Amino acid sequence: MDIKYPNGKSFIRNQNKTKQNKITKKKASYSNRGMQLEEMINESNEFYLTQDICVVHKKPTPITVVSVDYSRRASTRINEAYYQTPSTLDYSGVYKSKHLDFDAKETNNKTSFPLSNFHQHQIEHMERVKKHGGICFAIFYFKTLDKIFLLDAEVIIEYWKNQSNGGRKSIPIQVFNDKGNEIKIGYRPAIDYIKIVDKLYF
Amino acid sequence: MDIKYPNGKSFIRNQNKTKQNKITKKKASYSNRGMQLEEMINESNEFYLTQDICVVHKKPTPITVVSVDYSRRASTRINEAYYQTPSTLDYSGVYKSKHLDFDAKETNNKTSFPLSNFHQHQIEHMERVKKHGGICFAIFYFKTLDKIFLLDAEVIIEYWKNQSNGGRKSIPIQVFNDKGNEIKIGYRPAIDYIKIVDKLYF
Repeated sequence: MDIKYPNGKSFIRNQNKTKQNKITKKKASYSNRGMQLEEMINESNEFYLTQDICVVHKKPTPITVVSVDYSRRASTRINEAYYQTPSTLDYSGVYKSKHLDFDAKETNNKTSFPLSNFHQHQIEHMERVKKHGGICFAIFYFKTLDKIFLLDAEVIIEYWKNQSNGGRKSIPIQVFNDKGNEIKIGYRPAIDYIKIVDKLYF
Repeated sequence: MDIKYPNGKSFIRNQNKTKQNKITKKKASYSNRGMQLEEMINESNEFYLTQDICVVHKKPTPITVVSVDYSRRASTRINEAYYQTPSTLDYSGVYKSKHLDFDAKETNNKTSFPLSNFHQHQIEHMERVKKHGGICFAIFYFKTLDKIFLLDAEVIIEYWKNQSNGGRKSIPIQVFNDKGNEIKIGYRPAIDYIKIVDKLYF
């Protein structure tokens, strides 16, 4: 089956196909396939879209275009551009008429998630979305532990703010166990976050 | 006041400042300042954000990055990239907990709006958002007529589908007068679309 990202790009499961196939035969688990969190969420969103469950897309990465070549007939070529720091979150969409807004984060840490992975603007965005009644959270992938958690934005905002009052610079794994919701990696969808959203917000 | 776009870029009202000032003195109307619809909507969204009315951002333009130079220390330079055809709409966000999704379109036409300004994927996206209870519409700027209308996605979808059944390839201005809602250009916000959203969807 030809799976495509929302941007129309073909989804390639793994560049190293031979290695890939061997592993898949051993154990049909996403965690062993070396998939990145973003890929798994994109695939899940594609599944939700085709199953008519919700409409969630990854926002394009913000890029500042500096120089463009308009002389080409077929397509305008961008010759110089730079990545911007995102001021919102990666994913947004609609579920049961509510606005969904969330981010996806990965870490190799085993004991906590470093807050340096967030930007001030993203935290402000989370606060605003929550205030206006949107559903806002982040999905965290502790790669070494092979554990995925959904954590409501409120907890993230709380830890972010405590930093400047001499608080920790990271969210301990215990907080994810206590206040977060673990998502077991599945087949389709890989990351069934809507199940948690249903439980937490409806 | 330093107004910034959601992407952090400074908002420059008009490159030709001298001409700009002269016109502003004559008549404090946006329509005479040669502002593009997108600029006016971005400015309005910024206003809504600071006034804590709603959280709406323009999505970054989707770009396919082909070649990147990682050797530079300061910032990664993109050397080759291309614009993609958008598969969703330009703007999205949250208002009174509901998901908002809309596009902004301009035309020099006086009698109708050409449907060729939309893409198949955008229409499909509109259908999905409506189906899942999101608020979905487009804001049309008839530049020659100096008129702005908000038109619900349902009407756009209807005209799009009728095309293939031998229907018109454009939406007549009469439809905007009858089924749309005119938005008078104001000062702050320039385009007070939330007023119409309140009237139509709440």
